[in-house]
Amino acid sequence: MSAHAASSRLKVSGTCFFLQILTIILFAVFVRYSPDTSPGLRSGQLNCSSGRNPSSDSGFHHPRFRDVHLQTLIGFGFLMAFLSRYGTGSMAVNFLVVAFAIQWAILIQGFFYSFLNGKIYMEAQSMVSADFCAGAILISVGAILGRVNPLQMLLMTLLEVVLFTVNEYILLSLMGVSDSGGSLTVHTFGAYFGLTVSWILRQPHSDKRNQQQDMGHYPDVFAAVGTIYLWIFWPGFASATTVRTNAEPWAALNNYLALAASTLATFVISPLLHEEGVLQMTQVQDAAVAGMAMMGMAGEMLLTPFGALIAGFLAGLISPLGFKFLTPVLCSKLNIQDACGVHNVHGMPGILGALLGTLLTALASADAYGNRMELVFPHVADGSWTATYQAVCQLCALPVTLLLVVLGGSVVGAILKIKRLGSPPDTQYLENKTLREVS
Amino acid sequence: MSAHAASSRLKVSGTCFFLQILTIILFAVFVRYSPDTSPGLRSGQLNCSSGRNPSSDSGFHHPRFRDVHLQTLIGFGFLMAFLSRYGTGSMAVNFLVVAFAIQWAILIQGFFYSFLNGKIYMEAQSMVSADFCAGAILISVGAILGRVNPLQMLLMTLLEVVLFTVNEYILLSLMGVSDSGGSLTVHTFGAYFGLTVSWILRQPHSDKRNQQQDMGHYPDVFAAVGTIYLWIFWPGFASATTVRTNAEPWAALNNYLALAASTLATFVISPLLHEEGVLQMTQVQDAAVAGMAMMGMAGEMLLTPFGALIAGFLAGLISPLGFKFLTPVLCSKLNIQDACGVHNVHGMPGILGALLGTLLTALASADAYGNRMELVFPHVADGSWTATYQAVCQLCALPVTLLLVVLGGSVVGAILKIKRLGSPPDTQYLENKTLREVS
Amino acid sequence: MSAHAASSRLKVSGTCFFLQILTIILFAVFVRYSPDTSPGLRSGQLNCSSGRNPSSDSGFHHPRFRDVHLQTLIGFGFLMAFLSRYGTGSMAVNFLVVAFAIQWAILIQGFFYSFLNGKIYMEAQSMVSADFCAGAILISVGAILGRVNPLQMLLMTLLEVVLFTVNEYILLSLMGVSDSGGSLTVHTFGAYFGLTVSWILRQPHSDKRNQQQDMGHYPDVFAAVGTIYLWIFWPGFASATTVRTNAEPWAALNNYLALAASTLATFVISPLLHEEGVLQMTQVQDAAVAGMAMMGMAGEMLLTPFGALIAGFLAGLISPLGFKFLTPVLCSKLNIQDACGVHNVHGMPGILGALLGTLLTALASADAYGNRMELVFPHVADGSWTATYQAVCQLCALPVTLLLVVLGGSVVGAILKIKRLGSPPDTQYLENKTLREVS
Repeated sequence: MSAHAASSRLKVSGTCFFLQILTIILFAVFVRYSPDTSPGLRSGQLNCSSGRNPSSDSGFHHPRFRDVHLQTLIGFGFLMAFLSRYGTGSMAVNFLVVAFAIQWAILIQGFFYSFLNGKIYMEAQSMVSADFCAGAILISVGAILGRVNPLQMLLMTLLEVVLFTVNEYILLSLMGVSDSGGSLTVHTFGAYFGLTVSWILRQPHSDKRNQQQDMGHYPDVFAAVGTIYLWIFWPGFASATTVRTNAEPWAALNNYLALAASTLATFVISPLLHEEGVLQMTQVQDAAVAGMAMMGMAGEMLLTPFGALIAGFLAGLISPLGFKFLTPVLCSKLNIQDACGVHNVHGMPGILGALLGTLLTALASADAYGNRMELVFPHVADGSWTATYQAVCQLCALPVTLLLVVLGGSVVGAILKIKRLGSPPDTQYLENKTLREVS
Repeated sequence: MSAHAASSRLKVSGTCFFLQILTIILFAVFVRYSPDTSPGLRSGQLNCSSGRNPSSDSGFHHPRFRDVHLQTLIGFGFLMAFLSRYGTGSMAVNFLVVAFAIQWAILIQGFFYSFLNGKIYMEAQSMVSADFCAGAILISVGAILGRVNPLQMLLMTLLEVVLFTVNEYILLSLMGVSDSGGSLTVHTFGAYFGLTVSWILRQPHSDKRNQQQDMGHYPDVFAAVGTIYLWIFWPGFASATTVRTNAEPWAALNNYLALAASTLATFVISPLLHEEGVLQMTQVQDAAVAGMAMMGMAGEMLLTPFGALIAGFLAGLISPLGFKFLTPVLCSKLNIQDACGVHNVHGMPGILGALLGTLLTALASADAYGNRMELVFPHVADGSWTATYQAVCQLCALPVTLLLVVLGGSVVGAILKIKRLGSPPDTQYLENKTLREVS
Repeated sequence: MSAHAASSRLKVSGTCFFLQILTIILFAVFVRYSPDTSPGLRSGQLNCSSGRNPSSDSGFHHPRFRDVHLQTLIGFGFLMAFLSRYGTGSMAVNFLVVAFAIQWAILIQGFFYSFLNGKIYMEAQSMVSADFCAGAILISVGAILGRVNPLQMLLMTLLEVVLFTVNEYILLSLMGVSDSGGSLTVHTFGAYFGLTVSWILRQPHSDKRNQQQDMGHYPDVFAAVGTIYLWIFWPGFASATTVRTNAEPWAALNNYLALAASTLATFVISPLLHEEGVLQMTQVQDAAVAGMAMMGMAGEMLLTPFGALIAGFLAGLISPLGFKFLTPVLCSKLNIQDACGVHNVHGMPGILGALLGTLLTALASADAYGNRMELVFPHVADGSWTATYQAVCQLCALPVTLLLVVLGGSVVGAILKIKRLGSPPDTQYLENKTLREVS
């Protein structure tokens, strides 16, 4: 048994070494920093990256550096708030996943968005995009936490980053969908990808393990810190990627109000669902995450504060209801285990957010949006699309994402399973033990 | 008894539901986002909001958006640093209070400051003001924590937000007082309001409960995290609401130095007071909070660094002395229980800060302030007031605040008590239990 | 024994009081805020402070205030991330050290950098410099934690701040070394100063105490929070002090990539070193700190992303190897105790970072750097030095720092020891007890 454990440790070490060397080589061959002073290159690059680039207003005297500073700051905050959701027990392995996902995402996203003359030109915005991608990976990991070993996590990260980027590219660049906060690209994608993998990795005889899904053993202090991170960093981050002019930061305000309303909603619904009436910080944290998943797409489209309140309130209601009624059903009927409840806090609110975004897009009029239109819906603003067509695009993005997720997740899950089958029969126990040891 | 607990849970749920629906309706009727492009409206609005609006220099090419970003970021940080003072046990209920207070404060403050043509025009600055208000509510909650149920907390929030806004309006708009960091409007108001309510809710036979006021059972790690939040976010926040030009951020520097000096003061006084010599992070945290309460009004008025050191040093001395000598006297003689010692860390330092601000105002001269004068004392700068008259105003603000607090707190306390009397006789025990359960 | 404890407590209290009063008096005599509106003074001051001052582009309409805001914010974050490394047990005493070090550093650095007409003109940048200095003190404290009492810590702080400033002045101003992130001035200086003092304070018979050097008893949650702080605040901070124009923030990107690579490196090396395979958050945190120590000097010099990956990977490999092989040897052979392993996470990575910076300097060419050259190597950009000469300067800075550290650390250690000898024979036990009590 100690031989198995030793070989398992060696595998983790060797895989990390191989992946890091691979990344270094690929970076050495392909990745360069974006030069400061070649406007020609910059504008060429801009055409590829389709509106995500804040330097588009380079004619202005915008303090780009400080802006990027702040984005980096709150980008990390965003990622770390996610990390803090998984408790200290698995924190170290999650850091490993994040550290690799960021490097890998810079490479893969670079090939899609800023590949020019055989080089990827990296800039500060690449970091923020990589953070988004790592966030989606963390959500997926949340679904399968405790049942995979670090090797499988790294393999899943390797493949999921590619899928994430393909999906994001199809949605944002090809279909022209507006999803700045990632309701679809981050939350829905991450949650259902993780659930699909979890379903593929299901074990028929794992009846007793299902009961340990509750998150009550996480220290409450950790949930409190995580919630505080979210409240501090999320509204700024959600608006960092959107409107960048002198306009009022409606996306930040919408997120702010949605966070407040989702917290109240948790206090409305939780006492009704739980006999013992224990309302812990984890539930407040789940409500905050659900609220922000809900506002991902709609955050910059909502034009009235009360809309944000209603949306946040719904998100806060749905998450505890899902934990109470849907998670047990998923587990017993469909045999889908969801270790951290990502379906409730990311999946359903993300889908709802996408539907809300579609509705708001259909209702968009140049009258109500004013000069904000060209920031939120550039295709509608320049007259090439109607608002209805844009709404159809937004709506189609949901099935496209789900299709990609189910197909991709099945393939990735099957690969993880094949690998697992290649191990000795008692490996599963050992690898679980290794995970617990290593993490 | 389980029937009582169930009814208590239902009451919490129903109240939250009612309050959220009420807020949504009021938001739907009254609140709109401030439009970006109507300078006429903006300037009209500015006249109402009396100097708190950073967009007054709209002629310049100020990066308003980034500024607001940062303010939001550190505004949340400020609030959450407050939250972290109350330990994990009651964290969830405190989040409920914050989530409701923010929404309610946006409404009430909107009616006072930016009500125009039947609509409240909300902008990013509204968030920051609502954060200040929620901070005052949290201070009041700190005085009565453990003796009220969530229902009473919500009712108190409902009423205190109105009182806070009235007081703030009288002080800042009618009397022209300069109190950007909230020594009076936040710290003094919050502390003495909470103490008045606590006094009204006193119970003659609660002799044994007094002993559990110590904060030693809070996890030290939480105090450490809270102190770190304060050090990181407070100095930036204190100066965010004040000087907004290219001037040196003296308010931030003053707060910084005051924090450092108050920490040393705690190490001076604590070993003398406590035989066992245990100096815990909670005391360092209290010193930091006291230092920042002290610098609320004076932060932007101090012109020399050593003044900030002296003020911070005094604040750091007063807080432990209050815990040692004043809190027991308040409790045994006046029967005022002060669960988190808000009198020591907010009340007294706030009053001292107001007195210091008055002194500095009286000494203000155009010579020493230069072009900083019009930012700190606009009335003095334009020649309509003398510095002495401004100082009298600053001084009068203290009794006005205290009067309002005692009257308002008594009424609110009486209302809370009536509600409590309406409950069954053993409700008090049950509701305390509910609080503990729900929180 | 209680008499000893009481006298020990009184000593701490009296020393804090004396130091604070001394600082207040010195501030009152010497320190003034830098006036906003006297460009003549400002430019004079600029000549002294040698490139550290961000206001040099005062002709532009740079939003200096916001910039400083952000710097303050992340400056604190940097410091507090350091603080959080030492666990809650000794947190309070570390706050004391920080609070005093900041005040003292503003004074001492002011005498060196901005002393003009008998006054020190303090500005926001002074805060950031003082934060750097306090960071170095905290690193030194990490080496001797648990074996000195608060009095000795304060005395060491008093002397080390002066030495730090002398070293920084020699390196940055006299030798023209470029070390914006403090590989040498902060990390190497702090680590080897602490180790020298630790060696002087060694006790021949302390064989059993060596075993308690492991950091495993720190709560993992604290390490997680500390790591998150580092990831959030460090890359922004590292670049805050360097490039301040519209250039891409390569220093931030380099730090970001180094953090990611060092995390993977820890997962490569730790399973090989530790039989039990336990990888805890403290190790991930150590890797992050090592990565940032490594990038201190080279952060702004690296022109390609893969260079940052390689450097971070090496830093992440070295730190666990040092803990496994070097720390026991240092302890048993040289009798140097290193309570928090600062040699592994600050010392060696700092030296490696300095060597890497030297290498990069020698390779620097105007062709590759472009207009970035005048920001990183002003002497080379204006043609007065060649890149080779600059590289020699960078290389010489390492022995200069080490020499100063060993001499200074020996003197300071001897002073601390003399004081200790003046105590009663059983003082050592008592003072350790006092430390544990007071902290």
